Amino acid sequence: MALLPAAVRKFPTKIFRSNVSNINCQLRLQNRPKGLLAPGDLQLIESPVPEIRDGQALARVKYLSIDPTMRLWMAADTYLPAVGVGEVMRAIGFAEIVESRHPDYKKGDRLTGLTGLQEYVILDESAKRSFQKVPKIPFVPDTVFLGVLGVNGLTAFFGMEIAQPKKGDTLVVSAAAGATGSIVGQIGKIHGCRVVGIAGSDDKCAWIAKDLGFDAAINYKHPDWKEKLATATPKGIDIDFENVGGDIMQTVLGRMNLHGRVVLCGLISGYTKGDPGMASFATVLVKRLRVQGFIILDYASRFMEAATQLGHWKMFGKLKDRETIVEGLEKAPDAINMLFTGGNTGKLIVKL
Amino acid sequence: MALLPAAVRKFPTKIFRSNVSNINCQLRLQNRPKGLLAPGDLQLIESPVPEIRDGQALARVKYLSIDPTMRLWMAADTYLPAVGVGEVMRAIGFAEIVESRHPDYKKGDRLTGLTGLQEYVILDESAKRSFQKVPKIPFVPDTVFLGVLGVNGLTAFFGMEIAQPKKGDTLVVSAAAGATGSIVGQIGKIHGCRVVGIAGSDDKCAWIAKDLGFDAAINYKHPDWKEKLATATPKGIDIDFENVGGDIMQTVLGRMNLHGRVVLCGLISGYTKGDPGMASFATVLVKRLRVQGFIILDYASRFMEAATQLGHWKMFGKLKDRETIVEGLEKAPDAINMLFTGGNTGKLIVKL
Repeated sequence: MALLPAAVRKFPTKIFRSNVSNINCQLRLQNRPKGLLAPGDLQLIESPVPEIRDGQALARVKYLSIDPTMRLWMAADTYLPAVGVGEVMRAIGFAEIVESRHPDYKKGDRLTGLTGLQEYVILDESAKRSFQKVPKIPFVPDTVFLGVLGVNGLTAFFGMEIAQPKKGDTLVVSAAAGATGSIVGQIGKIHGCRVVGIAGSDDKCAWIAKDLGFDAAINYKHPDWKEKLATATPKGIDIDFENVGGDIMQTVLGRMNLHGRVVLCGLISGYTKGDPGMASFATVLVKRLRVQGFIILDYASRFMEAATQLGHWKMFGKLKDRETIVEGLEKAPDAINMLFTGGNTGKLIVKL
Repeated sequence: MALLPAAVRKFPTKIFRSNVSNINCQLRLQNRPKGLLAPGDLQLIESPVPEIRDGQALARVKYLSIDPTMRLWMAADTYLPAVGVGEVMRAIGFAEIVESRHPDYKKGDRLTGLTGLQEYVILDESAKRSFQKVPKIPFVPDTVFLGVLGVNGLTAFFGMEIAQPKKGDTLVVSAAAGATGSIVGQIGKIHGCRVVGIAGSDDKCAWIAKDLGFDAAINYKHPDWKEKLATATPKGIDIDFENVGGDIMQTVLGRMNLHGRVVLCGLISGYTKGDPGMASFATVLVKRLRVQGFIILDYASRFMEAATQLGHWKMFGKLKDRETIVEGLEKAPDAINMLFTGGNTGKLIVKL
């Protein structure tokens, strides 16, 4: 196949191409989105697959992890600098080395890390900081390294460490059928908590209550969800694992017990609205709550410890997962929007 | 002087009366205030001084501590039940036993505790929980037991324990010329912090910067105060000792360093506005802040430890204070309003 000059296409456009290619399709940030992503915010670009030099390796991206935080990365500097306009959109992916002149990598090695929304990525000296090798485990899908044993599992693990759950505590988790929330609740059950999940559809609620063993699941789209939350938390709430913010957070805070803990993991309800997570600190004061914001990057030195524990739990059937898989890089913008419209259950993946 | 029948008077009315009286003037909550207190929200009532029975003592109130939290107590159930309409308004005071049939109290004993806004208070079995005896110390005014060695000192002490100050940390305290804030900043200096106070007048700023040794003082009523705060905190902010909330809190949060600590002590800017302390949790998340709400009542078992330390610091000149004293029970409603309009510097006291 001939190497095409770099070209720009609008998505959604299905990419038809043979399995081996010297074109690297990339999604580059073209506009900082307002609200949900619009066509043109991410632009599909065809670049040549880069030649590698000594000390570099080339990896082909197989799966991309689609996470709410990507919407933050598009908007402004936060805990990481914003993605620059014109740059390949930042994303975590699963990739396999296809060619290597790097001493640490050989063909066939498998990694997760900041691949970006593209088909090929160059690994160089700095790769050690942004990529981790992962093993091939029989009967375990590669995508587990993006979910339960990836960023979501790690986030749930360290967030629950901050929560300091005690047996008998009532834990409420929002976005409970999401990739992180679903693991949070299961870790809560491992610790002996009463676990109540808040999710956005009856199907999601059925999954977390029946398959994952949550004690109760509340569909916040039902008009009487606040009463149902009260009924499901008769002893109040000791831990709020907060992924959503806004009215849901405010309602949960209203039922917190004195000296409760709020693990502030995400405020997804505001990410597409320019709403900066406004909520009342008065409840925090009067109920003497501890609110701890956290970002998983701070725990990098302990990822192995956490992954070992998560892998153990997974192996013994204590962490179940579900995936929503979307095929094709060109679908990544739609997939990102799904996170904010409730379209996915469990881990959202783009398969290339 | 004849015992008058219980009578109701509107304030402000100066009470003229001989030093010994069998009338107990009380301020009772008549309406839950909207905004600042209006005449009639607290009503001045003349009741007979109660006769004491066996197991009771009668104390005459000499000073009343005027604190922002009183406005919360008038409005709704919070960390304590709201004061009931018709009840004597809850307040901390300094009182002296004038008559006793209680085994633990004798005439002349001096106490601080929940006297309420009134001239006389009965102490019975339950007094041990709500009153503490205080010593007579030469050259030390009684009012110190309401301020530096009272609720404000204790609040500053335990709040700063939550803050975990390290040498070289930058500490910002709001309402810095108030009874609590002024002590917070001085404790910060004892711990080797760079201390920046935010207050509402140039006089207040001069006091905390020149007399109390704060490194910088910012008058938030100057239009360029945010720039001045930035200049005064060149290395960002590690600790926010938050007494105010609202725009001031939001601005301080914006300059917090990663992993900073927010001690949520008060949200006074909202107490008269029905504003429940709205601020952005997004900053808490992105900067991985720890926000801890606290109420001094939770530390009752450690008051002696704290008072000992505070007394030591006070004796060695490390804690300076200032008082704003208003004379007359009938002035208490105006005094409460002063807290929200910036009328007082340091400890606000009503002298009876």
